Amino acid sequence: MRLAILGSGAVGQSVADLAGEYGHEVVALADSSSAVVDSDGIDVDDALERKISSGAVGDADPAAVFETDYDVLVEATPTTLDDAEPGFTHAKRALEADRHVVLANKGPVAERYEDLRAIEADSAGSVRFEATVGGAIPVLSTIEDETPQAVTAVRGVLNGTANFILTRMAAEGLDYEHVLAEAQDLGVAEADPTFDVDGTDAALKFVILANVLSDGGFSLEDATVEGIQNIPGSALDLAAEDGRTIRLIGEATREGIRVGPRLVPENGALAVTGTRNIVQIETRHAGSLHSSGRGAGGPETATAVLSDVGRLPEL
Amino acid sequence: MRLAILGSGAVGQSVADLAGEYGHEVVALADSSSAVVDSDGIDVDDALERKISSGAVGDADPAAVFETDYDVLVEATPTTLDDAEPGFTHAKRALEADRHVVLANKGPVAERYEDLRAIEADSAGSVRFEATVGGAIPVLSTIEDETPQAVTAVRGVLNGTANFILTRMAAEGLDYEHVLAEAQDLGVAEADPTFDVDGTDAALKFVILANVLSDGGFSLEDATVEGIQNIPGSALDLAAEDGRTIRLIGEATREGIRVGPRLVPENGALAVTGTRNIVQIETRHAGSLHSSGRGAGGPETATAVLSDVGRLPEL
Repeated sequence: MRLAILGSGAVGQSVADLAGEYGHEVVALADSSSAVVDSDGIDVDDALERKISSGAVGDADPAAVFETDYDVLVEATPTTLDDAEPGFTHAKRALEADRHVVLANKGPVAERYEDLRAIEADSAGSVRFEATVGGAIPVLSTIEDETPQAVTAVRGVLNGTANFILTRMAAEGLDYEHVLAEAQDLGVAEADPTFDVDGTDAALKFVILANVLSDGGFSLEDATVEGIQNIPGSALDLAAEDGRTIRLIGEATREGIRVGPRLVPENGALAVTGTRNIVQIETRHAGSLHSSGRGAGGPETATAVLSDVGRLPEL
Repeated sequence: MRLAILGSGAVGQSVADLAGEYGHEVVALADSSSAVVDSDGIDVDDALERKISSGAVGDADPAAVFETDYDVLVEATPTTLDDAEPGFTHAKRALEADRHVVLANKGPVAERYEDLRAIEADSAGSVRFEATVGGAIPVLSTIEDETPQAVTAVRGVLNGTANFILTRMAAEGLDYEHVLAEAQDLGVAEADPTFDVDGTDAALKFVILANVLSDGGFSLEDATVEGIQNIPGSALDLAAEDGRTIRLIGEATREGIRVGPRLVPENGALAVTGTRNIVQIETRHAGSLHSSGRGAGGPETATAVLSDVGRLPEL
């Protein structure tokens, strides 16, 4: 398939980098202010080097991307809330041109799910969004294969930054501020870590899951969310005396979405460590399926994008 | 899709029972000596009751199944080794009639993988076999979506009977013979438990995985296999003193297949308990993906069969 990639952060760059290995061609790559397009396939190495050295992937205007001949638009621009723009309109333009859309951007499917599905229904193209939930872990494709109606709930740890912080607080007996600074030094937390530590990032993912289970009906404002910023080290010590620890756990059902710190058994499935994520998919006939892995990272998320591309039908 | 189901043990019965819920119709159901066929869809409840009360699903000859108009042949007859008959020929007949085949029977893909793929290549139908590895756990579809070339190894616990026995031996300090008898009483081990306790069942699954990674080249005789029959209770006690336990672990790579008892960390991912299974899929770009769940059972395995049916293209 010919890929047009919007977004040249870690995910966009990794998709461009790995596309060839998966048998696909990159015909366009754009960042916020520039683009490089070539209907015969761009020189990916060249564009990525240019991005690193000059901050721009190319000379063209980003609008040039939509003028290229592509099969799949990969939307990997930063997640935005409420109207989910400009990501939503990017997806809309591709669908209205009867092209496929693969999202790494959570905004359109967390905040405007039904609007997006309506446009998809009138298009020859399809929308897939495995990369929006759980990075490399095949959560959405598992639910799709089980069929959503056979899934009753999805629970788990879907934010690696918060999980890393809680793991380190428990392991070292350090306080939140100290471990957050360590996480930022390691690149595990961003300079502005708000969405990770206040539970918003996890909530967006569980909102997407609730939308998949119910075919729409939810957005971020429907979620009950509590973050990890107020957990004192003493809470983790107390928990440990009882063979437990604390994790930021989310749950999505057909009734809604909740995210918050919970006590979990120290050696249980939900007590994943470091930046690892885990989902527990509760099914009607097959009990509980657990999937864990790397929930974030350029290459990790890119494998989810390319996995989606592989499941798209020929146009 | 219209399903023709060969085999009326736990798996065949569950596939027939759940097919309607997944939007499919059962047009034929056969056991070893009888069949019931109806191009408008059989009365599944009726057939299953008949099976329970009389031991036979219907009045027709099993050969009648191949004369029905069906889209997918579900091959759920008992796994056989070496020539993998009659399962192999059942699959061959369906493919030669340009129909799809979904296998729950491990024989054809463990023992005659390349032969089967060659027949598939000349057919309009496709072969899928998620149910042959790990019951409800989506192992093969995960590898397929990652693309096999991006997977370097698959490791894990894929036999619930052996895992249950080892879990109970460690938990209660009981010896093997005692726990095996308990497992048989519970229906977790069969009257003849050989294939489960000598590692053959697990080995067949890892052979199938090696065949998927390498597109053929392996059969059961290529596997290095050791079972659990000779593990004394004292070995588990010793392991526990060191924070470890023993599990029957298998591994498949492009080099081959090994199955045998291994020491694993007591609280680690591989120390699944009871009849639960786990696979660790090692990938080039996304680290290690772990999936665990129920590895066996009628409804559990049926969900894997129906998941495969859902991924088949229209004929």
